[in-house]
Amino acid sequence: MFKGGYQGKVLWVDLGQRKIETRELDPGLARKYIGGSGIGARLLYDLTGADTDPLGPDNPLIFLTGPCAGTRVPTSGRHQVVAKSPLTGIWGESDIGGTWGKQLKEAGFDGVVVTGEAERPVYIWIADGQAEIRDAGHLWGKDTYEVDVLLREETDSNATVHAIGPAGENLVPLASIMSDGKHGRAAGRCGLGAVMGAKKLKALVARGTGPVATADPDKISEMVAAIAGPAREGLKGFSSFGTGGGVIGIEQLGDLPIKNWYQGKWEEGAQRISGQRMAETILTGRYFCAGCFIGCGREVKISEGPYAPVEGAGPEYETLAMFGAMALIDNLEAIARANEVCNRLGLDTISTGGVVCFAMEAYEKGILSKEDTDGLEIRWGDPDVLVQLIDRIASRQGIGVLLGQGVKKAAEELGGLALEFAIHTKGLEFPAHDPRAHNSQAVSYATSNRGACHLQSFSHMFEKSCTMPELGYPEVMDRFGIEGRGRMAAVMQDLMCLFDSLKMCKFMVAGGIKVHHLVDFLNAVTGWDFDQEELMRAGERIFNLKRLYNVRCGVSRKDDTLPDRILVHRRGAGGAATNLPPVHEMLSQYYEHRGWDEMGVPRPDKLAELGLDEPEAG
Amino acid sequence: MFKGGYQGKVLWVDLGQRKIETRELDPGLARKYIGGSGIGARLLYDLTGADTDPLGPDNPLIFLTGPCAGTRVPTSGRHQVVAKSPLTGIWGESDIGGTWGKQLKEAGFDGVVVTGEAERPVYIWIADGQAEIRDAGHLWGKDTYEVDVLLREETDSNATVHAIGPAGENLVPLASIMSDGKHGRAAGRCGLGAVMGAKKLKALVARGTGPVATADPDKISEMVAAIAGPAREGLKGFSSFGTGGGVIGIEQLGDLPIKNWYQGKWEEGAQRISGQRMAETILTGRYFCAGCFIGCGREVKISEGPYAPVEGAGPEYETLAMFGAMALIDNLEAIARANEVCNRLGLDTISTGGVVCFAMEAYEKGILSKEDTDGLEIRWGDPDVLVQLIDRIASRQGIGVLLGQGVKKAAEELGGLALEFAIHTKGLEFPAHDPRAHNSQAVSYATSNRGACHLQSFSHMFEKSCTMPELGYPEVMDRFGIEGRGRMAAVMQDLMCLFDSLKMCKFMVAGGIKVHHLVDFLNAVTGWDFDQEELMRAGERIFNLKRLYNVRCGVSRKDDTLPDRILVHRRGAGGAATNLPPVHEMLSQYYEHRGWDEMGVPRPDKLAELGLDEPEAG
Repeated sequence: MFKGGYQGKVLWVDLGQRKIETRELDPGLARKYIGGSGIGARLLYDLTGADTDPLGPDNPLIFLTGPCAGTRVPTSGRHQVVAKSPLTGIWGESDIGGTWGKQLKEAGFDGVVVTGEAERPVYIWIADGQAEIRDAGHLWGKDTYEVDVLLREETDSNATVHAIGPAGENLVPLASIMSDGKHGRAAGRCGLGAVMGAKKLKALVARGTGPVATADPDKISEMVAAIAGPAREGLKGFSSFGTGGGVIGIEQLGDLPIKNWYQGKWEEGAQRISGQRMAETILTGRYFCAGCFIGCGREVKISEGPYAPVEGAGPEYETLAMFGAMALIDNLEAIARANEVCNRLGLDTISTGGVVCFAMEAYEKGILSKEDTDGLEIRWGDPDVLVQLIDRIASRQGIGVLLGQGVKKAAEELGGLALEFAIHTKGLEFPAHDPRAHNSQAVSYATSNRGACHLQSFSHMFEKSCTMPELGYPEVMDRFGIEGRGRMAAVMQDLMCLFDSLKMCKFMVAGGIKVHHLVDFLNAVTGWDFDQEELMRAGERIFNLKRLYNVRCGVSRKDDTLPDRILVHRRGAGGAATNLPPVHEMLSQYYEHRGWDEMGVPRPDKLAELGLDEPEAG
Repeated sequence: MFKGGYQGKVLWVDLGQRKIETRELDPGLARKYIGGSGIGARLLYDLTGADTDPLGPDNPLIFLTGPCAGTRVPTSGRHQVVAKSPLTGIWGESDIGGTWGKQLKEAGFDGVVVTGEAERPVYIWIADGQAEIRDAGHLWGKDTYEVDVLLREETDSNATVHAIGPAGENLVPLASIMSDGKHGRAAGRCGLGAVMGAKKLKALVARGTGPVATADPDKISEMVAAIAGPAREGLKGFSSFGTGGGVIGIEQLGDLPIKNWYQGKWEEGAQRISGQRMAETILTGRYFCAGCFIGCGREVKISEGPYAPVEGAGPEYETLAMFGAMALIDNLEAIARANEVCNRLGLDTISTGGVVCFAMEAYEKGILSKEDTDGLEIRWGDPDVLVQLIDRIASRQGIGVLLGQGVKKAAEELGGLALEFAIHTKGLEFPAHDPRAHNSQAVSYATSNRGACHLQSFSHMFEKSCTMPELGYPEVMDRFGIEGRGRMAAVMQDLMCLFDSLKMCKFMVAGGIKVHHLVDFLNAVTGWDFDQEELMRAGERIFNLKRLYNVRCGVSRKDDTLPDRILVHRRGAGGAATNLPPVHEMLSQYYEHRGWDEMGVPRPDKLAELGLDEPEAG
């Protein structure tokens, strides 16, 4: 059936019935939707409806690798988690690195679809062609670092543990699903940890030692040899300083969110929380996801002082920005501590940072008072407040009940002016890149299927340093340009759907990966004969299918927007002091390019062109 | 206390306690807030809070004249009705002509504040210094034309009856308060008829024969003599063809809404429903509000055919547009019939037209089906459907329950794409002027305190034919201009607050009235010494006080917007084929001019400047 790349098998685990079956993966489906995010979209579309309760038994939790996962294709040790989001109520997905995807693939499976709901806490143990549901009562309440140690003791010390922490158990819609223990890999966005918690599924532990066949291993080796040098060179900043190495430059561009997206500059603060500063202080080593030669992951250690102990994953760029610049906290050790607390409790640092800073602004404006917070003074720049709020959010205590719903619902509950500084699109808190600094990101954020997201298009990279000649971008684009930015966002979204489906790391774009590499890797892995057109068409199909999912949930143009703070408030200083992205204009370009109608619904002829006009069985 | 203009007395009627008292009107309050809309704003602000239920006993229903009402100042026979709106949940007001305001003033009162809620249906009978609450059980369920006849029989044939119809009794949030019987004067907007219905107050009947003193009658006579000729000349189109005389020209400008704001041209249809066509067919006479020499009111009669009988008020421009062009109905007799049905049942023709056309689009798109409508096919252009829907809305039957809530709530209930074509701002259906045809109206609609409204600024007139040199507009402005339109909308809103408070008709702007006339009339009526600055400052104060009311209800910048259909859909043909008003840009200008912060909240220094920084007793 499959020449290479896929194992051709998906585990279907019904927790309610406590039954596991292995189903074949249909090659036609794989060719049409590639893997990861794409096959996940098809499954979720077919398995759920507009009324599916994200925290009910009918919402499946889908873990999928892609054809490149587990092969020698660089950065392919990733997988995708898909479910209807309890945070946003629409399409939910999260891309995650680490080693779990590779283990699953090497255990003989392309994915795991978890349905139903266990009566008591359980975990799933998957090892070389076998899977079983095991009791997890003794693990409930434990944090993800603890669970990692306990479960590897209980199963195989070389296994990878993919687990939720107390936040997921408590159904907090900001909950992440963590992997690789103290190395802190996160499927952070969209609150998928709460879906796992609702299923009383504490962890999925995977151990695989079998081979992942590829159709043309020599071709892959040849390509890897050709790519590795330039990519290492292009990504050496990531290797040396991690993603946090970008903080200083991003602040200079005016791309770093500061004080809940209000302030324009924070130069000294950026220095203090940078990856460079981390390298001089708390850094102890690097972390590589499976199949990666970049190693952007940070390992840090803090043994003394108010924020000790910290040991393991250090904060990423997003975390430094959301807990640092956003909150005006310039204490790197405090941020590292807050990061570890989130990792252990299983909370998305982006959304958590977003809602903590929302609370800081609400407190400043008198919308929240000490009466609402059990006496806690939620002031800008206070690291102790940050850690305390994280605890309350994860445990759903006090003000944490309100904030744990995310900024959209918290603002709706507070009403009035609070709605003015709830920085989200479609209910997902903004990640730490400012659309005022890169116009294409305005339309990308507005249309991203999972809500505000820079990674769904990665388009700011093409307004900053990268090119993609095969898609019509032979030169770096002007970041304040408007003309053609609608098309650009759409094309890059299609491309990023492919990264999320092949399962490769998007950072490779900065390492020089072009579309033809993706085509060649896919063909070498699978033995198929994709050309660029078929591959990009698959990306477009995947993006549109997610849009159809959202349209069914009630999404339309009204939801494709940005908060007024981004549309009308100028940063006022720094590298993007005056730009305001004209989102309506770019959005109209975008719809036209996409073949969507004015309300944001894909037109029937576009769906027919993409083969999305007829329902198909997942 | 007062030299002229005011009677100095306000009736306070507590329906719950069945008590009436006369309270003095504070001259300081009158000088600061002028009358009508201004004093109404002060009273409503002080009498209600954010949580006041618009249909509960704590929402007062306030009827107020102004200093010019009942005097010889032209077009001054008007009054204002104020309450928290059950349609929008925020500031509600409606300006109305006819003769009731003059009768009230001549009966010795500047206004009536109705509080509480009667146990059984009642009406209030006010005559020359006296007032009483009377039983209205025998009138409940009767339409407004019937009640007019019955109550004038029961009281005084020369009295004026201000009454609700069945729609108000049924608490439909689109209900109007009608006056002058078959002459069909309407306090239409904001659903104030439902507030009256909730109080079980069927009518207020007024008869006054006393004098309204003015401080300088000679000056007034002199001014009237100077103004009348040019004003009659300037307004002769209104005299000859009524407001409906504008339909053809407004269609040519691209200012006429067509097919729920989707279509650009409807030339032949506009001819068929025009005031000119009315004059050639069903017109029988003109109607003059008290103190008016324009006589734009139409009297029509239809004695035979499917839409007979009709006798009395003919449709205004707004009604012709909302029931005609908006619904693609080009049958003038049908529109006249629908107009009379609305008048009798007591429904606002603008909001009713808006929600009927919303339903037509929802039906076309398959969002509503025959199952939802008891088999009614809600097709564009069908006059019978229009009349049937009006009936169901007023009686709250079948699909009328959904639609009677207005487009905002109906769309929220239907969800999804229905939200894309619900054309309102702050819950108030758009009136029949298109902001795509006059840029300043985009920011005016966005910021109008009662929700989408052209009359709150009347600014399109200054992009069309009028000037106001004293306010910086010596020439007619370019209707597609952007520069300075924020200021212009604000200044004209301040000016229109004065018309609504002095109680004069805004059409006088087209008759050549300038700011100095308002200053002179006010001084001649009252004996005060206002100058332009003090008067315009009063307008600004009144506008800001209403804004404060709304801010307390949770309104902020997020609510100061227009539907995407206006912001991003081009009309595509006709006189405004391609323009899209850049509302964000103009809004930022507007806030800056107003001295509001970025979230749309008046800054403390602005409030201090306007004397709105301290609470005052109403």
